[in-house]
Amino acid sequence: MTNYDEKYLKRGASASKSEVHTAIKNTDKGIFPGAFCKIIEDKLGNDPDYCNIMHADGAGTKSSLAYIYYKETGDISVFRGIAQDSLIMNIDDVIAVGATDNMLFSNTIGRNKHLVSGEIIGEIIDGYEQVLSMLNNNGIGIYSCGGETADVGDLVRTVIVDSTLSARMKRSDVIDNENIVPGDVIIGLASYGQATYEDRYNSGMGSNGLTSARHDVFTDIYIEKYPESYADATDKEYIYCGKYKLTDDFGHGGLTVGEAVLSPTRTYAPVLKKIFDKIGRDKIHGIIHNSGGGQVKCRSFGKGVHYIKDSMIEIPPLFELIKESSGTDYPEMYQVFNMGSRMEFIVPEDLVEKIIAIAGSFAIEAKTIGRVEKNPDSDTSNKVTITAPDGREIIY
Amino acid sequence: MTNYDEKYLKRGASASKSEVHTAIKNTDKGIFPGAFCKIIEDKLGNDPDYCNIMHADGAGTKSSLAYIYYKETGDISVFRGIAQDSLIMNIDDVIAVGATDNMLFSNTIGRNKHLVSGEIIGEIIDGYEQVLSMLNNNGIGIYSCGGETADVGDLVRTVIVDSTLSARMKRSDVIDNENIVPGDVIIGLASYGQATYEDRYNSGMGSNGLTSARHDVFTDIYIEKYPESYADATDKEYIYCGKYKLTDDFGHGGLTVGEAVLSPTRTYAPVLKKIFDKIGRDKIHGIIHNSGGGQVKCRSFGKGVHYIKDSMIEIPPLFELIKESSGTDYPEMYQVFNMGSRMEFIVPEDLVEKIIAIAGSFAIEAKTIGRVEKNPDSDTSNKVTITAPDGREIIY
Repeated sequence: MTNYDEKYLKRGASASKSEVHTAIKNTDKGIFPGAFCKIIEDKLGNDPDYCNIMHADGAGTKSSLAYIYYKETGDISVFRGIAQDSLIMNIDDVIAVGATDNMLFSNTIGRNKHLVSGEIIGEIIDGYEQVLSMLNNNGIGIYSCGGETADVGDLVRTVIVDSTLSARMKRSDVIDNENIVPGDVIIGLASYGQATYEDRYNSGMGSNGLTSARHDVFTDIYIEKYPESYADATDKEYIYCGKYKLTDDFGHGGLTVGEAVLSPTRTYAPVLKKIFDKIGRDKIHGIIHNSGGGQVKCRSFGKGVHYIKDSMIEIPPLFELIKESSGTDYPEMYQVFNMGSRMEFIVPEDLVEKIIAIAGSFAIEAKTIGRVEKNPDSDTSNKVTITAPDGREIIY
Repeated sequence: MTNYDEKYLKRGASASKSEVHTAIKNTDKGIFPGAFCKIIEDKLGNDPDYCNIMHADGAGTKSSLAYIYYKETGDISVFRGIAQDSLIMNIDDVIAVGATDNMLFSNTIGRNKHLVSGEIIGEIIDGYEQVLSMLNNNGIGIYSCGGETADVGDLVRTVIVDSTLSARMKRSDVIDNENIVPGDVIIGLASYGQATYEDRYNSGMGSNGLTSARHDVFTDIYIEKYPESYADATDKEYIYCGKYKLTDDFGHGGLTVGEAVLSPTRTYAPVLKKIFDKIGRDKIHGIIHNSGGGQVKCRSFGKGVHYIKDSMIEIPPLFELIKESSGTDYPEMYQVFNMGSRMEFIVPEDLVEKIIAIAGSFAIEAKTIGRVEKNPDSDTSNKVTITAPDGREIIY
């Protein structure tokens, strides 16, 4: 356990979720065990050429930050971003295996009615509809089936925003990370800036590492003011121990620091859809969504390979701010945050130019950030080496 | 707003969820607007003869009771029952429209890692697998796709246990409550006793009304002992204001009072599957799952009808205990709890004997509890009259 893991545990959370992985170790891995998401046979249609995915995720503790931001500023629209976080944490996982159509979406909200109004619930539901509509306009076939809002004040301090996506797709369309081979190159797609389908600057924040980012960035004036926004069993020295107020100027994109940490998770779905349409899925050896696990996520995919990331996309201001505020070193930062690239392609060299051009057509920076070699230490497990901005080679 | 609603609101919950219904009023009703669940066209397979359902629900605050029961007794297996509650709240809704096959299942757990161990998560996950396996053995085609466990101590006091089900079915198999007509009879299926597929006496408790049942039944010794088990903003006079300890003898089925309130939600899926197989779906005019809304749930289905329930199944001991402990009168009890029957069939008279016999083959009591007449007051909205044990006719 790293120091970082220990700090997470003290906050009633975890970065590595090793206990959870132990609890689920016996559940089977599906019919494409190497793929980014669990894929099962076509239980929905009984067609041997098809397969199914059902995937659950949520906005995590980002909703707690939205809550205090709303209380401080009166800006209720931040809850639309929370809906986007919840939805994109699902769709960007599922589109990473190649699914772009025949998807159903359902949401689950748990709220404390003492504190969270029907108006807030309305913003979350409208937020979902808004993002679904943008995805539909970009050719993604995802459809809302409504959901459940439960008043569970005895369980939930403020509001928890989760969702689930199910998909049916052709087996021949599956992008299976088992095809990753030495000689491939790694292309990173920037998580920050402003894509053509975004209406303002995005800081690059996803929906991972929020328990850390919230407490390490923001000041202790919120401890007394919003006790409902954190676990009461957490030692106070780990609660809001940063130096920023929510409304401090972030210095980029016209955002406050609160808005920067609350930046809705960028979706790469329109970009991936266009890449699949123009290049096809066959030649793509792997796609990794750098959510939980950050830049080290790739280590769980492929077989006996060494991911060498020696030319990373420049770290955006928000992650430098979190790094400085939390006193966390690069080795741990790369394991929790996407650090500037939340989606990466692992492909033969000849696809590089086309993928970069398509990302560019959406105003998203993309570049070759590294390569795949054989893992000299093992034929089965994988290794990741990241070159940090200070020149250090960090080995995972 | 009733007094009961007010008490719920004071506890950070709600019985009528009117605010939530306002927030979602603009979302569409699907292709069978009269059906028990929202049904959409076959987005998963693009076949005009098929349709899809995606449905989300959870165990609600029952998990908070399981938590304190586990702390008091060390019996960790109560969390298996919570998984059953979460799963059955989904499947019994979906099977009420006729779906019995081609279903995918996914779960979402949010926990406070300070208080809820990996061992508890393991029990919940094993509980899901156990119930799924029982359903599969009874001919229900539902398949687990895993799920997500999030460590979100800043949002969740103890543990929240939700799940989602998606299904693909033939449109011709849909049981659409729009077929309910005057002249039909109402058959109730008991929610208590011990079905052939249950391993002990079931009190009849579902997963609705738990915020009331928990606080109105159990004694204030738990206020100081388990502050993590309730909303801290709730006025203490509404917290654990009953007279029972969790381990007091319930007097029925060898259960303690804690075990009685924690009785895992009975599923009717094996019974409905057999009814569909033996009788067919065509002749069944309606099926109502009496979850939230209790015995008044039927009012939302059908058109211009009057449900007259004048011969109810005997109220089981647990609901009499809750009624007495909470000082709640019958009119409100019937709106929150199933009061002894959580599933009802609305059918022509000639199906009565067959349905009762099939329920009986699973050791589940069933009887004609009433009839459908034309609503004398309206051609579009519905009315419910329930005859209480004291002879009062309660009109909703």
